[in-house]
Amino acid sequence: MDVRKKALDKHFEWNGKIEVISRAKITSREDLALAYTPGVAEACLAIAGDPEKAYQLTRRNNLVGVITNGTAVLGLGNIGPSASMPVMEGKCVLFKEFADVDAFPICIEALDVETVVQTIEQLANSFGGINLEDIAAPECFDIERRLKASLDIPVFHDDQHGTAIVVAAGLINALKLVHKSFSDIKVVVNGAGSAGIAIAKHLLSFGVQNLILADKKGILSSAYPELNSEQKKMLTATNIENQTGDLSTALMNADVFIGVSAPNILTSEMVSKMASDSIVFAMANPTPEIMPDDAKAAGVAVIGTGRSDFPNQVNNVLAFPGVFKGALSVRARDINDEMKMAASHAIADLIGAEELAPDYIIPDALDKRVAAAVCEAVKKTAVETGVARI
Amino acid sequence: MDVRKKALDKHFEWNGKIEVISRAKITSREDLALAYTPGVAEACLAIAGDPEKAYQLTRRNNLVGVITNGTAVLGLGNIGPSASMPVMEGKCVLFKEFADVDAFPICIEALDVETVVQTIEQLANSFGGINLEDIAAPECFDIERRLKASLDIPVFHDDQHGTAIVVAAGLINALKLVHKSFSDIKVVVNGAGSAGIAIAKHLLSFGVQNLILADKKGILSSAYPELNSEQKKMLTATNIENQTGDLSTALMNADVFIGVSAPNILTSEMVSKMASDSIVFAMANPTPEIMPDDAKAAGVAVIGTGRSDFPNQVNNVLAFPGVFKGALSVRARDINDEMKMAASHAIADLIGAEELAPDYIIPDALDKRVAAAVCEAVKKTAVETGVARI
Repeated sequence: MDVRKKALDKHFEWNGKIEVISRAKITSREDLALAYTPGVAEACLAIAGDPEKAYQLTRRNNLVGVITNGTAVLGLGNIGPSASMPVMEGKCVLFKEFADVDAFPICIEALDVETVVQTIEQLANSFGGINLEDIAAPECFDIERRLKASLDIPVFHDDQHGTAIVVAAGLINALKLVHKSFSDIKVVVNGAGSAGIAIAKHLLSFGVQNLILADKKGILSSAYPELNSEQKKMLTATNIENQTGDLSTALMNADVFIGVSAPNILTSEMVSKMASDSIVFAMANPTPEIMPDDAKAAGVAVIGTGRSDFPNQVNNVLAFPGVFKGALSVRARDINDEMKMAASHAIADLIGAEELAPDYIIPDALDKRVAAAVCEAVKKTAVETGVARI
Repeated sequence: MDVRKKALDKHFEWNGKIEVISRAKITSREDLALAYTPGVAEACLAIAGDPEKAYQLTRRNNLVGVITNGTAVLGLGNIGPSASMPVMEGKCVLFKEFADVDAFPICIEALDVETVVQTIEQLANSFGGINLEDIAAPECFDIERRLKASLDIPVFHDDQHGTAIVVAAGLINALKLVHKSFSDIKVVVNGAGSAGIAIAKHLLSFGVQNLILADKKGILSSAYPELNSEQKKMLTATNIENQTGDLSTALMNADVFIGVSAPNILTSEMVSKMASDSIVFAMANPTPEIMPDDAKAAGVAVIGTGRSDFPNQVNNVLAFPGVFKGALSVRARDINDEMKMAASHAIADLIGAEELAPDYIIPDALDKRVAAAVCEAVKKTAVETGVARI
């Protein structure tokens, strides 16, 4: 049976993929008096006296809000809040199944930055962290930036940072195979939306000096028509020679191609212009920018995609469950760049030197060691960088 | 051990009284492809094509948001959103334990009606119903009224209607014992906040003609100092003779006293002025308006309180789990007066003629038959009154 048909059937069967259960069983008057009135008043008063106690006396310690406005859902675009709920519930499922993090989905109506920010600020104290999901660029950048500034809990737009963390993990390992280093490579990121820009920023953190962002109309430069504010900002640290031209031009002597763009746009001819031992992450879904066999035939040394039926799948589930688990476990007030870098290293390091190979640079999405390793690394880095509160 | 101390210990042990679990287990690549990408897209598209499908494909069909701004929490007053969370989680526990309804707590920051309403409107489509909780009067009236008008899912302020439903249930049975009827009795409701006003309204629906509301400064009349807008509205249908004076004056020949007010304010002398076979619901917590023994000594025929250690406990848990379960089960767009009345009757009817007695007019709070009976009655009435959508 076709996966889509089967998925729809399963969704009818699940009748909702999440469920809210009670950790306090009520079978006697005393149970009622302890979990609810009059006993519960004591927990309220303890928090009123010391707000940090909310992390011990309520679920806030392990609870993430998965929040969207449905403006950029999967490849479906702006399908609105209600229709985006199956994805948000799915995300909550992954949080629980991979890292035992409780996550609850909230789909809000507003399209404008102001209302989205205000709504999330109103309810943020009900959660230990906020995972923003499937919010369109460029609004997603402002929304995240404002919430990170106003809230003292972690705010993390997974479409940006989850993808960036896993791409960097894959690249750490791919570079080992081809004996190159971040500071020496030329990287082309094709697709300048939320994921592309976040990947570019994250790779700059890893020391990449030569990075070009491109989009439908070619290389992002001062000559590119209609750059949004976030894209403009990227010009200060990328494309430092202010090169212009199309993707093909950008790829001249590039060591790495990272695609979060469109099917089949990377041709064998373009690949042949890249440097030797080139690395390609072709993450367009479901059809990659280039098929792995074609990439290899054209001389690519290492290729990853977004698909589970090819080796080296770049899948966010390798990052977000452990990232939040780690941040929550030390009550981090932020998920900073250092923590994201630590997450990338933790994922990469799970593949030892002896097993590292062109077809195995990224752990399997179902590898249950990953969330624990990411959690530990993120936790440690939160403490080291001073954002942990315990 | 003192219940409050033990309750605090239990809260530390629970570490949050709710938990969000997954109904979709992820152990294989296929599981991932069905619950998340790419399969989940099919569920999204189905809802985009028909928004009602959200009730089959997501948890909306069984999910209630328990929402507060923490302005009137238990008897503690305005303790703020974070400190109110233990009560909200407790409410969610009761929803799940008594009626298998999934409920999720959200504490919002705003004190003003406008922001509370806007915030809830923004996230309402993530839920099948909204249970407002512990929001101060008179703001609670406007908030509920506006949300009922703007949303097409049930909105129910439990402090108002939950209490009213159970009081009316008790009164139905008490009146049977003393052979009086709603249309002939004089009722005094002492306490003109959210619960008192809702009780008064609900009893008017049951046909009470002679009802007086009183508060700290005496009988609510056109002469009462500083009535809020909701209290003013009540004057059109209560205290029709525009009587003035104190509680003692109000109680002359009254058949029923309903107190949602303060400890020990109902004296034996006041009771002696009431009509014969008088009925008293003294629901101040933890110390009632009059202790049951004193009430009986002064001639009261039937007495109920808010306490679990006396007979006839007026406990909202008899109402809200079944009310929401019933409304959700037929996708009701509202919980209307008829549904609330049906809930009162369903609770009352669980006590058969042969067991009905002055010390048994209200079922025990732990009587697990109640939620099912209330659910059925509410469901049937939703269909009959045209608010059911299936």
